[in-house]
Amino acid sequence: MKNKIAIFPGTFDPFTLGHHDIVLRGLKIFDTIHIAIGNNPEKERYFDVELIKNKVKKLYKNENKINIILYNELTAEISKKLNANFILRGLRNTTDFEFENSISQINKDINKDLETIFLITSPKLAPISSTIIRDVIKYGGDINKYLPFKIN
Amino acid sequence: MKNKIAIFPGTFDPFTLGHHDIVLRGLKIFDTIHIAIGNNPEKERYFDVELIKNKVKKLYKNENKINIILYNELTAEISKKLNANFILRGLRNTTDFEFENSISQINKDINKDLETIFLITSPKLAPISSTIIRDVIKYGGDINKYLPFKIN
Amino acid sequence: MKNKIAIFPGTFDPFTLGHHDIVLRGLKIFDTIHIAIGNNPEKERYFDVELIKNKVKKLYKNENKINIILYNELTAEISKKLNANFILRGLRNTTDFEFENSISQINKDINKDLETIFLITSPKLAPISSTIIRDVIKYGGDINKYLPFKIN
Amino acid sequence: MKNKIAIFPGTFDPFTLGHHDIVLRGLKIFDTIHIAIGNNPEKERYFDVELIKNKVKKLYKNENKINIILYNELTAEISKKLNANFILRGLRNTTDFEFENSISQINKDINKDLETIFLITSPKLAPISSTIIRDVIKYGGDINKYLPFKIN
Amino acid sequence: MKNKIAIFPGTFDPFTLGHHDIVLRGLKIFDTIHIAIGNNPEKERYFDVELIKNKVKKLYKNENKINIILYNELTAEISKKLNANFILRGLRNTTDFEFENSISQINKDINKDLETIFLITSPKLAPISSTIIRDVIKYGGDINKYLPFKIN
Amino acid sequence: MKNKIAIFPGTFDPFTLGHHDIVLRGLKIFDTIHIAIGNNPEKERYFDVELIKNKVKKLYKNENKINIILYNELTAEISKKLNANFILRGLRNTTDFEFENSISQINKDINKDLETIFLITSPKLAPISSTIIRDVIKYGGDINKYLPFKIN
Repeated sequence: MKNKIAIFPGTFDPFTLGHHDIVLRGLKIFDTIHIAIGNNPEKERYFDVELIKNKVKKLYKNENKINIILYNELTAEISKKLNANFILRGLRNTTDFEFENSISQINKDINKDLETIFLITSPKLAPISSTIIRDVIKYGGDINKYLPFKIN
Repeated sequence: MKNKIAIFPGTFDPFTLGHHDIVLRGLKIFDTIHIAIGNNPEKERYFDVELIKNKVKKLYKNENKINIILYNELTAEISKKLNANFILRGLRNTTDFEFENSISQINKDINKDLETIFLITSPKLAPISSTIIRDVIKYGGDINKYLPFKIN
Repeated sequence: MKNKIAIFPGTFDPFTLGHHDIVLRGLKIFDTIHIAIGNNPEKERYFDVELIKNKVKKLYKNENKINIILYNELTAEISKKLNANFILRGLRNTTDFEFENSISQINKDINKDLETIFLITSPKLAPISSTIIRDVIKYGGDINKYLPFKIN
Repeated sequence: MKNKIAIFPGTFDPFTLGHHDIVLRGLKIFDTIHIAIGNNPEKERYFDVELIKNKVKKLYKNENKINIILYNELTAEISKKLNANFILRGLRNTTDFEFENSISQINKDINKDLETIFLITSPKLAPISSTIIRDVIKYGGDINKYLPFKIN
Repeated sequence: MKNKIAIFPGTFDPFTLGHHDIVLRGLKIFDTIHIAIGNNPEKERYFDVELIKNKVKKLYKNENKINIILYNELTAEISKKLNANFILRGLRNTTDFEFENSISQINKDINKDLETIFLITSPKLAPISSTIIRDVIKYGGDINKYLPFKIN
Repeated sequence: MKNKIAIFPGTFDPFTLGHHDIVLRGLKIFDTIHIAIGNNPEKERYFDVELIKNKVKKLYKNENKINIILYNELTAEISKKLNANFILRGLRNTTDFEFENSISQINKDINKDLETIFLITSPKLAPISSTIIRDVIKYGGDINKYLPFKIN
């Protein structure tokens, strides 16, 4: 059977335990997962994109099915170049659902072979979002418990 | 019976097939539809407001029940000036619903004769939003399939 | 312009102030509103369908744009017989929205000229549902404040 | 790599084009899909369970990756017997999401190796539900356009 | 300051770890919590109401702020008799929210001093519902892990 | 019994009748409510934070259970300093619910004794949000009907 290659796209600002949960569970389904970190110079980030890339690379250094890349183009386009036929996404709640519903249809419009596969985030990790984590760190809170690696 | 005059307000950045769907279906209900393009100089747009105005004007040039205007005031206020007693709005999903629910009550507060009429966007067009379209074009994707006119 | 004829279908078990709100606001849009009370002998009701029909008839006896009927067929089919091109529906919340979204598409499938027009229920009436009212009366509570007529 | 075996459970009363959409897209991910039709004698059905089983069997008779079974036990238990590590489910809207969110966690509780994989139903099929279809047929409407086979 | 007396109403068919979570957290707010088990002879239950009452009584036998009662009237009425000014409710998800939103307004209509206080169910318990638990036990699954007591 | 001290945090840009509703109803539950106005110099406001503080102070000048503060740290941290064990929050709709669900879990993570108590905003006030009010005033509309004090 054909190799199952997925892309797991995001800004990952930062990469959280919620993302880690989706990747680990995605490994049961896919032969390769490309973690694709959006790197648009015009969008401001809190965490340096190279820092995140290195942390994620180290996190999965013993997992040869995982590859980390930076990208700055349409997800549907980078997927073609990577021969990825699947997008892997986590769903935390209904707000996520409505957003992902739209995005996944547009991605299929642009690249009709691209199927988005959803996992529902594990309940205890569902409250974690990159946005909330950035708020916690801006006010001096400890965010390491929400991350799969130490960032400070 | 009194003429039924509606306003269809939005930023239309850009005007999409989803908007077009709502206007065409709205024509079955209303005698006049004023497509009112928000033109607030303090809010940044991606597409020039005059470009959109001209494209929409041309799109409906044979439809004498449709009028296109720019406006920079409260929707409830411009409605009074246009003698519009109805606001026409499309609903794509529950996120839209919660937002429109609030807005429609506030509009009625300001102008008690103003009734908001909702149509649910046709399923195949529901994924299209101006926000997603701007993301597609920023990364060089083709957006013409989401628009009722060629924009490039 | 063609007459605008709407059907306002429901089981109306009972007909509430929420329904009354939608009908009154619907009168601003439509030339005729057929209030169509579902009368399926196989579905158990709490309130007798003839009782409700008579109460609603009396309520709108001075309003010549309103007609009350019982029906026991597809809404899309009775609409054809009544020359109704519109279904009028109220939306109270997101649960309603998801349900009505599906129903309205199926109605359009069956009768492609049938457009469903939505009004959002006025906030103070949004908590009222026929189901809750039946629960209140079953336990001996006073439901008249939720109805546009006295029922006991 | 280990075979990827999924179960696609449901009452399928009836099996719709929406279900068919999920199965066809699921074939891109899984080596085997067991379509598992709930057959609880205590739950009343509209369509005979053997009729549906035969229709679905015929539908996929040339697809050797698909197997059809009847079952009357916990989904998490039948999954073990079938060596299925995945449950395949479609999501149509936020009401579905909230329901499936709960069910998928309980299934994982009972069988910790059981991962539920979600696809979002294609927009034009999202309005179709078995419940609505049963309502259409009860009132004499034509349901064949919602099914992947003729049922009458 | 006036004693804060709450009612925690439900059918509790059965009483779950989710309910237990809400009661324990409610104890931080209220001086007394009346766990009020709906006992309508016309509504079929899976678990005997006296069995549940006894199990819950035993569970909280050392907690003198908790009282268990059966009731068969409007929640707003039994609250008056118990001098309860508060209803305590848990929210698991958006479907719960929409339902509880309506119910709480109706309760306030009937008894204007009655304030409903909501806690959001702890994430790991949010998937648990009495409905799902009844489905698990009907098919012979083990439900004790979802309950604060052994029921078999 | 221990004093029940709550914090009611927000940006309050501006403080609305919706906030006022939650505070008044919160007074039935809590011995002290600290209205904590977020004062982050890096976040732009429309209304001056000192103006809002003074208006709110004056509004509750006869209510000795209410205290107004400015703060610029994590809500979970300021709560500790104030000996507050409760966060008081209003819920207007499902969008609010999903957001508050996440935030409340994170707050509990940071300060495990911190319980968030929710009230559902009164229906007629639910459409009011600070965001909408700022839009109304920017276009010259009258916002005083949405506020518990005159601001112009």
